[in-house]
Amino acid sequence: MKKGILLIVSGPSGVGKGTVSKALLNGSNGEMTFSVSATTRDPRPGEVHGVDYFYVSKEEFDRMIEDGEFLEYMNVFGRNYYGTPRKYVEEQISMGRDVLLDIDVNGAMNVKKNYPEAVAIMLAPPTMKELRRRLETRATETQEVIERRLAEAKSELSHMADYDFVVVNDDLELAIEQCRRIIETSKLTPGYCEDFVNTLIEEDF
Amino acid sequence: MKKGILLIVSGPSGVGKGTVSKALLNGSNGEMTFSVSATTRDPRPGEVHGVDYFYVSKEEFDRMIEDGEFLEYMNVFGRNYYGTPRKYVEEQISMGRDVLLDIDVNGAMNVKKNYPEAVAIMLAPPTMKELRRRLETRATETQEVIERRLAEAKSELSHMADYDFVVVNDDLELAIEQCRRIIETSKLTPGYCEDFVNTLIEEDF
Repeated sequence: MKKGILLIVSGPSGVGKGTVSKALLNGSNGEMTFSVSATTRDPRPGEVHGVDYFYVSKEEFDRMIEDGEFLEYMNVFGRNYYGTPRKYVEEQISMGRDVLLDIDVNGAMNVKKNYPEAVAIMLAPPTMKELRRRLETRATETQEVIERRLAEAKSELSHMADYDFVVVNDDLELAIEQCRRIIETSKLTPGYCEDFVNTLIEEDF
Repeated sequence: MKKGILLIVSGPSGVGKGTVSKALLNGSNGEMTFSVSATTRDPRPGEVHGVDYFYVSKEEFDRMIEDGEFLEYMNVFGRNYYGTPRKYVEEQISMGRDVLLDIDVNGAMNVKKNYPEAVAIMLAPPTMKELRRRLETRATETQEVIERRLAEAKSELSHMADYDFVVVNDDLELAIEQCRRIIETSKLTPGYCEDFVNTLIEEDF
């Protein structure tokens, strides 16, 4: 059976990362799953261990860091820890399922360092003006927050060269289609065809 | 304007390289062209300089080698020289045209060394038995030649890991489609989006 891939989708706030990610998942016929993070925060009502998060104690999280069990982790507001467990990702991938990781630039770079086969897509706005328009249309944030998000976006976008692919979210359907094709062609690399390659090379003729 | 890419298509004799290459070219709306080689052999009746080959003297060919003007070159049967001129490839690419290079494993590896942005596809048969069947059905070669081709195929296929992509030519239409998608997604890499990336990063917001 063919392995899955680890797909990283990064991009500035307002670029449409959530919409693209959901479309990829929904169109995958169950062949793709969101990565499940470990966290030290308490479960909220209705959240399920192993589905929404893996809920672990601070001690357990520290042990996991020590033992190199995270592809990346971070501390949010100096309070709660969040991390991507390598084990979950590898289990899904070995079952042939693609894992989608929606993560910021720093996280993406750490994952690539710890898991070089990961395929990292930067979702970019067509222009900064359009990104501003989207953030302002959304109208969920104050003008001050929007300005901060735009400054952050600029800093995030300056890391584009570290990504494997840049997908411009101008036409949403096209952006989704390009992500799908990136997933498809990533499975045509020799690393993902290892079994086939070995069988062919060992075959009598 | 977006640059083109240099696409290398390699694969053992009988795998269907010619058919796939022609389909890619014909379906490209003029956006793809075959690479034109330089050669020291004489033009045959009807062949046109700059279309079929660039016909050059042995002295000129030697000078081009000296000056590093080839992405790869080879000597066939110790007689005629053939080489891929970097200049032609770069001109086409800068005009936004993709260049298709149908070349053997050694040539492909030399091109990758001299032009790392090249995208190298190994076209593989689904099985060695199927490759044998195709060579035998073709019936243009003696059994002895077929056995030699199969041994060569094995040696070529053992280099699959050095390629960027492996496309299995089982269903021809699928193989062509996969090559097309590889071309498309290769243009979504940061190196090919440099102008866009720079414009975005420099834009006021």
